[in-house]
Amino acid sequence: MAEAATRRRRAGGRAGNTDRRGSAAIDQMPWRIPVNPDAPVEPLSQEGVAAIHDAAMRILEEIGIEFLNDEALEILIEAGCDVQDATVRMGRDFVMEMVRRAPASFTITPRNRDREITVGCKHILFGNVSSPPNYWDIETGKVPGTRNQCRDLLKLTQYFNCIHFAGGYPVEPVDLHASTRHLDVLFDKLTITDKVMHAYSLGRERVEDVMEMVRIAGGLSHDEFDATPRMYTNINSTSPLKHDFPMMDGWMRLARRGQGLVVTPFTLAGAMAPVTMAGAVAQSLAEGLAAIVLAQMIKPGVPCAIGTFTSNVDMKSGAPAFGTPEYSRATQMTGQMARFYGLPMRASGVCAANVPDGQAMWETEHSLWAAIQSGTNMVYHAAGWLEGGLIASPEKFIMDCEVLQQLQRYMEPEICDVGDDALALDAIAEVGPGGHFFGTQHTQDRYTTAFYQPFLSDWKNFEAWEAAGAVWTPERAHQMFKLIVNEFEPPAMDVAIRDELAEFVARRKSEGGAPTDF
Amino acid sequence: MAEAATRRRRAGGRAGNTDRRGSAAIDQMPWRIPVNPDAPVEPLSQEGVAAIHDAAMRILEEIGIEFLNDEALEILIEAGCDVQDATVRMGRDFVMEMVRRAPASFTITPRNRDREITVGCKHILFGNVSSPPNYWDIETGKVPGTRNQCRDLLKLTQYFNCIHFAGGYPVEPVDLHASTRHLDVLFDKLTITDKVMHAYSLGRERVEDVMEMVRIAGGLSHDEFDATPRMYTNINSTSPLKHDFPMMDGWMRLARRGQGLVVTPFTLAGAMAPVTMAGAVAQSLAEGLAAIVLAQMIKPGVPCAIGTFTSNVDMKSGAPAFGTPEYSRATQMTGQMARFYGLPMRASGVCAANVPDGQAMWETEHSLWAAIQSGTNMVYHAAGWLEGGLIASPEKFIMDCEVLQQLQRYMEPEICDVGDDALALDAIAEVGPGGHFFGTQHTQDRYTTAFYQPFLSDWKNFEAWEAAGAVWTPERAHQMFKLIVNEFEPPAMDVAIRDELAEFVARRKSEGGAPTDF
Repeated sequence: MAEAATRRRRAGGRAGNTDRRGSAAIDQMPWRIPVNPDAPVEPLSQEGVAAIHDAAMRILEEIGIEFLNDEALEILIEAGCDVQDATVRMGRDFVMEMVRRAPASFTITPRNRDREITVGCKHILFGNVSSPPNYWDIETGKVPGTRNQCRDLLKLTQYFNCIHFAGGYPVEPVDLHASTRHLDVLFDKLTITDKVMHAYSLGRERVEDVMEMVRIAGGLSHDEFDATPRMYTNINSTSPLKHDFPMMDGWMRLARRGQGLVVTPFTLAGAMAPVTMAGAVAQSLAEGLAAIVLAQMIKPGVPCAIGTFTSNVDMKSGAPAFGTPEYSRATQMTGQMARFYGLPMRASGVCAANVPDGQAMWETEHSLWAAIQSGTNMVYHAAGWLEGGLIASPEKFIMDCEVLQQLQRYMEPEICDVGDDALALDAIAEVGPGGHFFGTQHTQDRYTTAFYQPFLSDWKNFEAWEAAGAVWTPERAHQMFKLIVNEFEPPAMDVAIRDELAEFVARRKSEGGAPTDF
Repeated sequence: MAEAATRRRRAGGRAGNTDRRGSAAIDQMPWRIPVNPDAPVEPLSQEGVAAIHDAAMRILEEIGIEFLNDEALEILIEAGCDVQDATVRMGRDFVMEMVRRAPASFTITPRNRDREITVGCKHILFGNVSSPPNYWDIETGKVPGTRNQCRDLLKLTQYFNCIHFAGGYPVEPVDLHASTRHLDVLFDKLTITDKVMHAYSLGRERVEDVMEMVRIAGGLSHDEFDATPRMYTNINSTSPLKHDFPMMDGWMRLARRGQGLVVTPFTLAGAMAPVTMAGAVAQSLAEGLAAIVLAQMIKPGVPCAIGTFTSNVDMKSGAPAFGTPEYSRATQMTGQMARFYGLPMRASGVCAANVPDGQAMWETEHSLWAAIQSGTNMVYHAAGWLEGGLIASPEKFIMDCEVLQQLQRYMEPEICDVGDDALALDAIAEVGPGGHFFGTQHTQDRYTTAFYQPFLSDWKNFEAWEAAGAVWTPERAHQMFKLIVNEFEPPAMDVAIRDELAEFVARRKSEGGAPTDF
């Protein structure tokens, strides 16, 4: 134990055995919360920040946001907003007063308290892919998602220590009826993982069911659930300039109960937003801030994060493109604005590629570096995303986790230690011209933990790689996927709690679940 | 013409026809010199910079560098250095006085003056892969390099506008005898490309032959050649702490004639340098600065750049690893130090992967982002490198060029324009809630140039991609490679100059070329 702890503290990357749940499929990093030490990349000047802020405020003041939810409209009317039909206009002083109510950071505590996360504070947290309707792996090709595939991806979500929170369904299990799907998948999520949970804001029943199941899984009273965030939702506006009924309904329910709120407009420049990135960012901010204003009216101080999903379309086809140069800069600009508003920030790990090949990885790398450069706190879809979010892939999931581990290691300050030990003048003098460092005591004392050790990258030379079967990265990831799901052991859960969850699911199913008419 | 010029100026990425040489194989960006607008990532504090500087100076003062070259030793003795056997120790005041002689930036002018580059000034310039002994493509697999493969890769070097300078041989043509190889390859390089040329510093004959051929190709008198850099060399020290004879010999010859000098120690942490990155960086700097001191003694003000090739070994196998977290931070630290010394900086685009798959791209992405983050001015091996530099691959070359174009676009300030046109409030008001931007005049006026257009990335949806043959990225790159080399037209060269080059090669071959005994 002590040795494992030392190894972990000293770095390098490999987990002590204490952090793995019985599986020897891979030797991965321990659970850790990466803290991003880099100064953000700031493409906007102070005047640029002011210009985008002014544009966002003018959108809120002059153009307005449609709220297709009467309850929301009533609250906003009461707050003194100008409401005509469903279009709400709000003054910038009021907006800023409400936004200032939101905390700069907040915790979310899942049923396993060791998996608590703090959103903000230079943390950068990674979540699994969410919501693709389709699944692809090397064996099956592209097929509509199923519950089994969803479970497999949840196992990866739990297994990898570099995944800090669970997003939405890692693949949409379309073999489950939509009215009760949320019950089955939440049961799977809560039993297969012990990480932070998410609820889709798709109407009253789903949100209330998920909150109740998260409460049960945590063994919490209602008061305990309400006391501090135990889960979160992420909503998308219907860009341009519209918040739909079910999203707002879920948003307000979670706000009342003090849970985590993330709003992420999907502003594709040239389609749902202006073709110019500054305009797309300003519109995205206006849509996001409008939802945050509503939340802060409902429950002052409720934790909110602002998300960005601003990218551009392929102007040849109209298809969305991801990990583009324009995407990177929009993410960085949004990061500057999130700091201006004092809000935690969410971005994504995304690509347009259809299969986990080189293109998939360069596009995903661009989006992940944009997340780091923008000071993003929550990285959605950080593992497993393909085809602009239409496909979830286990191979891509595992390839992404290799990259996420490397980025976590990149953020460890030990690499840049400049103490006397690290400067190593004695070792340099000892080895001298033409010598070799491997045998020195300085190297021997440090070599097991000095460098990041990958679990998926193949660092053999070509001949050794060929002798081992000449396996390309996606195939290696596929083999690893099979090993991991076969050896997977779910995290511990009290039998009584599991039974209570199962009973809740059975009861709610017998009541018909949730309506499916939106 | 006017329209093409407007399109180019307005951005987006696609070349006007005027910039392509007859080939329609791909629609690429025009030639441009990317200027890196991002503030560098600086993992070292001021004290950290001082500590690494002090360590580098103590290496030079106390431990010393071996110069296995009598001419170099004589110059350094004359300068007052402490020389015992071949080990040279030099005081920090002297070192800094010499280093200050080097310019902060310099131009290199190839035979086509439109391809002149300035090294420094926040420019980031990309060069092709250099020196792998082997070639790999999807059809042939891994084979020793040949002249034909070398020519094909030179065609790619010339073809792609995002490649700004030619490095060493893009693959070592081992079917050519080593004594005359440099003559044949330089003939190929000078006739297939018109970009900035490189000479290997491998002894007198090679360096003198290459300088003479570059002079002839440029139609220059000897005085014109000497007046300003027309080419450059890159040397590696024999780490730890040693400069070998032929490298120093070539270095000094180019210094005397005022050509570009790049010194890049290959300091693999844990092997040729300390296992700790700060020590590896300090040692690399000491080795590099020692060569720069020598150059500045020989010709004050001669252009020098300091390179980094500090990475780590795989501690399981001892094999070099590239694009690792430690590599990224070492590159950034070296960038801080290069700015401290006022020297242009060279880094690389590198990976350990054996084939152009996902791993190849995430490792290469890490190294390319490290180059951007470190303020690197010359990026060696930016296209085509595999297997830690043992393989050159045309597919990887083309995949890398797609990434390089995207990074060039990323650096264009227009993306972050916050003028009224870009903020697009009128368009947002016109479209309103629930509308669509595609049809607006604001979009129509801008859509052809608003966004980067890839030449290799496939942004089709899965079904369209599948209908088009389900071609993965390396296969697409292979097809493109065939198209490009088949359609390639060499840049214009005066027949008399070409004849003079051919005569020079024939004469020097008849004289036996260069010795091969080192």
